[in-house]
Amino acid sequence: MVERDQAAPPADQLAAMDLTDAVQNHAFSDRVLIRSIVGRPDGGAGLAGQRVRAAGWVRTGREQGKGTFAFLELNDGSCPANLQVIVDAGVAVLSKLVATGTCVVVDGILKVPPEGTRQRIELRVEKVVHIGEVDPAKYPIPKTKLTLEFLRDHLHLRSRTNTIAAIARIRNALAFATHSFFQEHHFLYVHTPILTTSDCEGAGEMFQVTTLISEAEKLEKELIKNPPPSEADIEAARQLVSERGEAVKQLKAAKASKADIAASVAELNKAKESLSKLEERSKLKPGIPQKDGKIDYTQDFFARQAFLTVSGQLQVETYACAVSNVYTFGPTFRAEHSHTSRHLAEFWMVEPEIAFADLQDDMSCAEAYVKYMCKWLLEKCLDDMEFMAKNYDKGCIDRLRMVASTPFVRISYTEAVELLEEAVRGGKKFENEVEWGIDLASEHERYLTEVKFQKPVIVYNYPKGIKAFYMRLNDDLKTVAAMDVLVPKVGELIGGSQREERYDVIRERITEMGLPLEPYEWYLDLRRYGTVKHCGFGLGFERMILFATGIDNIRDVIPFPRYPGRADL
Amino acid sequence: MVERDQAAPPADQLAAMDLTDAVQNHAFSDRVLIRSIVGRPDGGAGLAGQRVRAAGWVRTGREQGKGTFAFLELNDGSCPANLQVIVDAGVAVLSKLVATGTCVVVDGILKVPPEGTRQRIELRVEKVVHIGEVDPAKYPIPKTKLTLEFLRDHLHLRSRTNTIAAIARIRNALAFATHSFFQEHHFLYVHTPILTTSDCEGAGEMFQVTTLISEAEKLEKELIKNPPPSEADIEAARQLVSERGEAVKQLKAAKASKADIAASVAELNKAKESLSKLEERSKLKPGIPQKDGKIDYTQDFFARQAFLTVSGQLQVETYACAVSNVYTFGPTFRAEHSHTSRHLAEFWMVEPEIAFADLQDDMSCAEAYVKYMCKWLLEKCLDDMEFMAKNYDKGCIDRLRMVASTPFVRISYTEAVELLEEAVRGGKKFENEVEWGIDLASEHERYLTEVKFQKPVIVYNYPKGIKAFYMRLNDDLKTVAAMDVLVPKVGELIGGSQREERYDVIRERITEMGLPLEPYEWYLDLRRYGTVKHCGFGLGFERMILFATGIDNIRDVIPFPRYPGRADL
Repeated sequence: MVERDQAAPPADQLAAMDLTDAVQNHAFSDRVLIRSIVGRPDGGAGLAGQRVRAAGWVRTGREQGKGTFAFLELNDGSCPANLQVIVDAGVAVLSKLVATGTCVVVDGILKVPPEGTRQRIELRVEKVVHIGEVDPAKYPIPKTKLTLEFLRDHLHLRSRTNTIAAIARIRNALAFATHSFFQEHHFLYVHTPILTTSDCEGAGEMFQVTTLISEAEKLEKELIKNPPPSEADIEAARQLVSERGEAVKQLKAAKASKADIAASVAELNKAKESLSKLEERSKLKPGIPQKDGKIDYTQDFFARQAFLTVSGQLQVETYACAVSNVYTFGPTFRAEHSHTSRHLAEFWMVEPEIAFADLQDDMSCAEAYVKYMCKWLLEKCLDDMEFMAKNYDKGCIDRLRMVASTPFVRISYTEAVELLEEAVRGGKKFENEVEWGIDLASEHERYLTEVKFQKPVIVYNYPKGIKAFYMRLNDDLKTVAAMDVLVPKVGELIGGSQREERYDVIRERITEMGLPLEPYEWYLDLRRYGTVKHCGFGLGFERMILFATGIDNIRDVIPFPRYPGRADL
Repeated sequence: MVERDQAAPPADQLAAMDLTDAVQNHAFSDRVLIRSIVGRPDGGAGLAGQRVRAAGWVRTGREQGKGTFAFLELNDGSCPANLQVIVDAGVAVLSKLVATGTCVVVDGILKVPPEGTRQRIELRVEKVVHIGEVDPAKYPIPKTKLTLEFLRDHLHLRSRTNTIAAIARIRNALAFATHSFFQEHHFLYVHTPILTTSDCEGAGEMFQVTTLISEAEKLEKELIKNPPPSEADIEAARQLVSERGEAVKQLKAAKASKADIAASVAELNKAKESLSKLEERSKLKPGIPQKDGKIDYTQDFFARQAFLTVSGQLQVETYACAVSNVYTFGPTFRAEHSHTSRHLAEFWMVEPEIAFADLQDDMSCAEAYVKYMCKWLLEKCLDDMEFMAKNYDKGCIDRLRMVASTPFVRISYTEAVELLEEAVRGGKKFENEVEWGIDLASEHERYLTEVKFQKPVIVYNYPKGIKAFYMRLNDDLKTVAAMDVLVPKVGELIGGSQREERYDVIRERITEMGLPLEPYEWYLDLRRYGTVKHCGFGLGFERMILFATGIDNIRDVIPFPRYPGRADL
């Protein structure tokens, strides 16, 4: 038995086994994923003769042979390649099948197509199980070449295009690569909060989250339906209380029976209660609750002002200072009125944080992580990368290979400025002047990584004046242990730093920057009690996708882009 | 060479190799993870004689032998077990090391402790590299047994406790298990939006996101600094325009030189410009912008009202109807004023969506996913599960084993109601009356899964009146193809349904439920064009953690809980 199991099965059995495998991988449906057929190394040829159920949406379809049969290019999103499907007129009404966007489920036999065709396998349909029709005259995204800009107005349908589907698969691959990388290195995934009351990083760019407006609207409607009591109503209720009080007094004075007094007291209490209800209601005012001329946030959902997070870093540090190696991967928000191709109001960030580690470790982690993602795409998404190379950026695969295999250059900020000054002396023109102390502009960053070194560059030790208070002050007292990873095509991909772990120094830095201490007390506690050397960085996830795919506009690499004036669906 | 490499190395070399491996797994730091030592099958005994750098926080410490040495129980969060560390008085000031919460980095030699001790290995310190001191008199979470409720007031430090750290590792494991499960089954991870303008599901329970308040506050400050022009200012500017206009007219009438006329026109234009600026500023009004007595949302960041998502389902359906198998895993929000141990204002949901699949497939997917997570914890988190079993819920490991290995019971809602009615006849008391048509209460659900079947139960085909419009209407026209997965300890863990894919039917259902059609037009498009049978479900991630750990309060299984009145950090 053992020997038989180990022996190679005959060819037809092999095909059968492969298909069983394919069916097992079909993801809770009775159809086979198209990638299980055309994604095989043999292009599916080895499956010839097998009966399968396939399903997907028609990318292109045409009737042929004077309407005796139809060719359909079927795609189910499992891979960029289509399955070629042939339907005879006897099997179905062909005109219902051929429109782009039509959904079909078909049973048939896989066959090797005639010599000279591109496909290695095609499906001869025996039965059409389902048709989800499309009226091509009304379909918002018909076959004709559509621009990415046009597709942004049809967010709910654009994932049916080859480009947006390929980006979705690449995005998925990068997300899972991210988790795999950090899990392999024993980092814990920590969900930092989306709603935050730490308004540290400049409330100006933060979205506010509130229930005050909807509560006010609810109250307004309620008050219209059921107006608050008038002064006269309240006066009448007050009068009643005093009358009832008088009645109790008189009964007591008259030494009435206990039962009579109790009944009278009950009446009094009822009157008091209804007075207090009226008084309560008379206080209700339409509009957002105010106190001392300001909005009264004690009445908001969290009893204080709340915002959407701009970064999970400060919060995730609480976990790094407890369980050593952690990372976040979640949405972050900026209420910037910025209409560029590089900014979104809602975007995803990856933020690892490492205890017992310094800036050098931080750079090593960042480099290893970026390389890992590049290798992952080359190994697991090559077909999608080839699609991007063919249609959007012919250098994108080479760029991944280069980054995956080349050690990143590491230069100090001071060296970087010297190199830029040298370039200026050599005739290079920058829009932004170069001198020690400036924040490097995108043009400077791209010069370093694309022109000077032509590979990824890590710039570290920035002037403290242009960086955040939590970055560790270097011994020169002029620079902080910050680092940025610059890559060709997008410039800055990662920003990170060693965190200031010395209580006195960070306290001084907060004060020096004119920030209040009180909101940072919890953050200072991490330094007060059991402080530890630690570092971390942030990677803008959409930037990584731009880098990988060569797509130009960030609005095309996130499924549902949010930017000033737009938040469809 | 090849043979030598393949031969088993001698025992001491093996130990050395293991440690190299441990150092490689140290996650970008020069210390070894404690799990690489004490987490080995031999408890670390095989590493005796090795020199290592270890780091972590002191769980308990005590001076011994009249102050000649100290024992430290060191934990770095990489596993629940501590490393026992012994420091001689000659190496460091022992009193600085022993306080709970102290951070230490030490170099030393691993030794097998004397017979009769619990540890299989201990670290004899040769050098103390770092001490992050703690003043035990001030430390908010000293050693004494602390309640989970108390710890909620110290969110930034509570991950330093064994319980919260164990929950963090279990949460991390379940998150990665989730991704691994769906990736293995070829589902694409799709990031559905957090900010949404689809106010479909009842705006009452949604958080509103706005920049109107902060913009109004900014404007208010600006107007105080720089008051708007008075009517007199504007009148003066108007006067100037008319004078300058007159001057131009006169020059033209007098046939003055072109240069003179041009100069005069320039003056006029300047005056016009400054008038229009003044007029613009005079329109600025403090407060939230209004139009027709209502808030003018065209001036909000997204030019319309925006909310935090309550579910990514509707949006992720757009991807399912394009790339077949997808899932979301992200934060969702409810502005409910609910103070129970089961509700949060911000919580994480997993929502797969499957094309070409029906309710049976949906149930199969849900069952496979829950079983997969249970197995994952048993395989990869057994030490943490043992901690939970010992300290919180002695049945939690058995529960995972049972769920991982037992086929889930599947009964229709009608059958479920019959079983409950039978129980009532048998003397069982429920607070909520049982009759066909009710939404099952938690007590009913728990009776079915904990008492009647004592295993997971899937209830399907619910009355349409108690379910959402998007659930597929069954042929009986009374029920919809919905399903809930009930498990012991938490009751409902998953809710899902086959989605209504028939355009006419879903349109009718929307209208029938009194909902407006317009906001659903994009959702209807999925049925208008290439419609497909599909289904999906949602799993409340924190509920899964409650189920796994046996923890009672949901506020303890998310790092930063948000609920009415509280959103710390």
